[in-house]
Amino acid sequence: MSSESAFARTPDPPYFAVIFTSQRTGENDGYAPAAARMVELAATQPGFLGIESARDAQGFGITVSYWTSTEAIARWKANAEHVVAQELGIRTWYRHYELRVAKVERAYAKAAA
Amino acid sequence: MSSESAFARTPDPPYFAVIFTSQRTGENDGYAPAAARMVELAATQPGFLGIESARDAQGFGITVSYWTSTEAIARWKANAEHVVAQELGIRTWYRHYELRVAKVERAYAKAAA
Repeated sequence: MSSESAFARTPDPPYFAVIFTSQRTGENDGYAPAAARMVELAATQPGFLGIESARDAQGFGITVSYWTSTEAIARWKANAEHVVAQELGIRTWYRHYELRVAKVERAYAKAAA
Repeated sequence: MSSESAFARTPDPPYFAVIFTSQRTGENDGYAPAAARMVELAATQPGFLGIESARDAQGFGITVSYWTSTEAIARWKANAEHVVAQELGIRTWYRHYELRVAKVERAYAKAAA
């Protein structure tokens, strides 16, 4: 993503962040549509605040999604369609990932002029 | 980055994360060496735990650095050489950025087989 829409428009803290850091395998089968679908689906979930994502040419990526509460994060984790995608991710698309749940306490910005 | 070294080896939570999301300008003068120097310098700071970074081909990037405490983050923010780089970043290298300070409460992983 390259436009302003790549930035999440989050409220004033506190809120919660899921930091998902991953290294892709070389297996692309089904990945792009599933990833796009998960972004679309996440955006419909209660408590979703936004998402930001970047992946480099070597397949290393960071996605941060923002949520109102840890309960909202737990519900999203348990979403049936998301559970299927998580399973495929573990088996097929990600060689290694780290997932961290964090409480955002402070935020600053420089917006585009 | 593409290897295992792209992942931060953080301890069990709690610890703190600085989530820096940014859109680069087209101005590359001095950027790459300054960015590399900041990673090198951050790693020498008290309380530094690790750093992960990905930027896509459109110049949208996410860098997450991990720290033992908010005091360590405040010291890093105030580091003289880092202050100069922050100023250049605001003026020259970043069209837009968002910086969030968060407390990591839980963490999971799938390590490479």
